[in-house]
Formats: sequence, structure tokens, C-alpha cells
Amino acid sequence: MRYKCTVCYDGSQFHGFQTQSDLRTVQIEIEAALEIIHKRKVNIFACSRTDAGVHAYGQIFHFDSEIKMPEWNMQNAINSRLPNDIYIKKVEIVSEDFHARYQVSKKEYHYLIDVGEYDPLKRNYRYYPKYHKTNIEAMEAASKVFIGVHDFKSFTKNHEIKNTVREIYDIEFIREGSLVTIKFIGNGFLHNMIRIIVAMLLEVGWGNLSKDDLEYILKQKNRKLAPKLAPANGLYLYKIYYNEKN
Amino acid sequence: MRYKCTVCYDGSQFHGFQTQSDLRTVQIEIEAALEIIHKRKVNIFACSRTDAGVHAYGQIFHFDSEIKMPEWNMQNAINSRLPNDIYIKKVEIVSEDFHARYQVSKKEYHYLIDVGEYDPLKRNYRYYPKYHKTNIEAMEAASKVFIGVHDFKSFTKNHEIKNTVREIYDIEFIREGSLVTIKFIGNGFLHNMIRIIVAMLLEVGWGNLSKDDLEYILKQKNRKLAPKLAPANGLYLYKIYYNEKN
Repeated sequence: MRYKCTVCYDGSQFHGFQTQSDLRTVQIEIEAALEIIHKRKVNIFACSRTDAGVHAYGQIFHFDSEIKMPEWNMQNAINSRLPNDIYIKKVEIVSEDFHARYQVSKKEYHYLIDVGEYDPLKRNYRYYPKYHKTNIEAMEAASKVFIGVHDFKSFTKNHEIKNTVREIYDIEFIREGSLVTIKFIGNGFLHNMIRIIVAMLLEVGWGNLSKDDLEYILKQKNRKLAPKLAPANGLYLYKIYYNEKN
Repeated sequence: MRYKCTVCYDGSQFHGFQTQSDLRTVQIEIEAALEIIHKRKVNIFACSRTDAGVHAYGQIFHFDSEIKMPEWNMQNAINSRLPNDIYIKKVEIVSEDFHARYQVSKKEYHYLIDVGEYDPLKRNYRYYPKYHKTNIEAMEAASKVFIGVHDFKSFTKNHEIKNTVREIYDIEFIREGSLVTIKFIGNGFLHNMIRIIVAMLLEVGWGNLSKDDLEYILKQKNRKLAPKLAPANGLYLYKIYYNEKN
């Protein structure tokens, strides 16, 4: 049986999603829960890695199991063995040709900026820039530079990867009071790509860079021209879209 | 100079407000910030104690200082020396007959219950009851029992206190989607009083007790009849009202 799971987590207390030595990660906690249920080690395959502090409302993973149980039953079995900062929202039994990572058609990430007064209760869930006057309209206009197929080499931390071309389908700005949600939809995102883009858009919002500057930096394919990184706590892996048959 | 401060904090990582031995409390952190500014120990006088895990949007304290500076300047001076889970929202220079604790006319607390699907990102800021069908209308109707002047001896943890009579001016239920905010306004609240009342109201919402049962328990003045306690993470010290001249 192959189970597809949609998982929500608060990234604040994790060293990211993926297992790495002894650090507390989301993957370690989920695999520990599955090991109790299966009485053997179970590997999960997730759609995306997320960095330390990054949250997820719609991370997807799959695993194979010899245990046949109804979807709601498997959901409860896992949730009852997870710490309270991870929650499985949905379990689906899928065919064995489904793969959480290789059949993705689109990924949607949200980045949350609050330009209002600092609220310590939301400090882990939004970025509160210290610089106070942020021109959101200028950020939104400049964001158009990134839409389409581009080589995002200037906007990634990882320079070992060969193919740094990605397509961004849409970047949308949504304002609710002092909260600005920037929605990114694309076929995939490089390591740190969204956080670097947001940091550079904020430089536009603060009047330090122009839209033309961003266009120039994009064309130069040189990370040294985009040396900023927005904090992890504003970033959410929001939704993963699969090809229709999945 | 007497300074009155309005402070907001995330109670999750504190052992309550008030200093007690070596535990991390809100008071310790604020007094440490003031000690850096004043180069001497400064005592603060707060309106209310809050327990571990309880949040505040409008806790009030005052302190006396030989330093004369504009209100915004003192606010920045303190905030820049506080950890990021405490934030001073307002500083006011007040007359020396103002006292944060002794001139209170009303206190407003909010208790947040979410009857929808569990969200791990909000786990520290709302109570998610595990029991799923909660009759909010029945809770609201039963809450009327507590409005007015009553001896709340059945609804407090502290049985050493002599005067357990308090007046609740209003209890209001506000629904926004799956979120239920219960607003309590009164002249004062005993230790754990709101959390015990909420726990007993939830028993009504789950069909285990009736409004008449709550009336009976209130009259009996016996905590053994009200042995429940709602979690701290749903409770907020929302606003303190002072007599007009303050």
C-alpha cells in the first residue's frame, strides 16, 4: 500500500524538514511515528525540503506500508504519535506509480510580511521588518521581473546545481491590514530562492534598489549581486499540485 | 518620574509574569532591561499576575525613574533590551499617585477556543478541544450564571484568600469561523477563576453539565465540584481599565 500524506508543521522548533545527523527535523519525527506503527524503519519521500524555521501547510510525502487500514485510521494512528508541532491533515491511498517528488506540476509558497506594529505572539510566523516605510506597490511592480522562465542563478545559495532555470507562473500580493502575503507559484524553486527574491524586493520597497536593478541582477547570474536573505519565519510551503491523474 | 507601561507578551516560554526563584518570568526580563538603562535595580509594579503560558496584550506596570526622557524614547530604550517575546506597546509619564495595581476599575480577559481542525502553528495561542462536538450556544447561555456579584469560591485554586466575592460585568461570545473568543469583563478575577469557568462551560458544551448544574456549583462554594482547568494557552490578559483620572 502506498500512502500519500499532506502535513502541516510549525517550523520554529525544527532544523528543517530533512534528516541530518542528530538534529531535530520533521522527517525524523514522522519516521519515528511510522516506526512505532510498523515495528520497523519506514522511509518517507517528501516533495520538498524546507529550511529551519520555514513552515508548511501543505507539504506532501508518501511511504509504502504492508498495513492496510482506512485513510482516516492511518491519519489518526500517525497523528497520535507525533509531537504537537506536526499534524497530518490528510491521508490518501494512492497507486504505486505515485511519487511525492517526481510528479509535481506546481508548487505554491507564501511569504508573510507584517508592516504594522510588532506583535511578539506572531514573531515566529511573520517577518516584521525594522525599517518602517515599505512601499508595497513598488515591490509588487518589481516582482513582475521574476515571472516567466529565467535562470535564477543570482537568486540561489546552491551553486553546485547545474540547471538553475525555473519558471515562475505567478507572484501575487495580497494585503489584509498590515499583513502582506506574497504568493509564489512556479514549477519549482531553488534553495533559498524565494527568501532571496523577497529580500531583494524589500530593498525595492525601502528605496534602495529599483525594478531595473533587479532585472540587471537577474541577467548577471551572480549571487554576489543579491546577497540578502529574508528570514525563514515568514515562509510557508503552502500547496503542492500534481499532474492530473494524481 | 513615574512611567506607566502597556506590555504585550507571548506567555509560552515564561513561567508566568511574577518573579519566582530562578525561573524565567516576564518580570525578570523587564527588570533586567530597566537595570541596564538605570545602572541600578528597578522594581516594577504590575496590575496582574499571569500564570505560565498565559498571554498578554494589555498588561500594565509602572516604575519610578530618575531618568527623564520622552515617552517614545523610553519605549525604545526598554524594547531594544527585551527578548523578542516581550514588547512594550506604550509608555506614558503619569503622576506619582498613579498605581498600576490599586486604581484598576475593570479587567478584560479573553479566552480563545478553536472548534475547527487542529493547526500546529496556533497550538500555543488557542485551545483546541479534542472532543469534537461543542455546543457553543449552550455554553453562552450557561455563562449568564456567572454575570453579577458572586462568591466565586468554587472557581478558584487559592483557598487562603478571604474575600472570594467578585463582580463580572459581562461575558461575551464572539465567533469568527471556528474560533470562539469569550470576553470576560469584571472588577477582578481570582487565581485560575477564568480557566475554571471556561472548563466548566466546556462541560456544558459537551453535554456533561447543565446551566443549572453550574448555578448549583457556584452556590456550593466548593472547588471540589469544579475540578477542571482549561489550558493556559487560550487565555489573554487583554485590557486593564483605570479610574477616569488615570
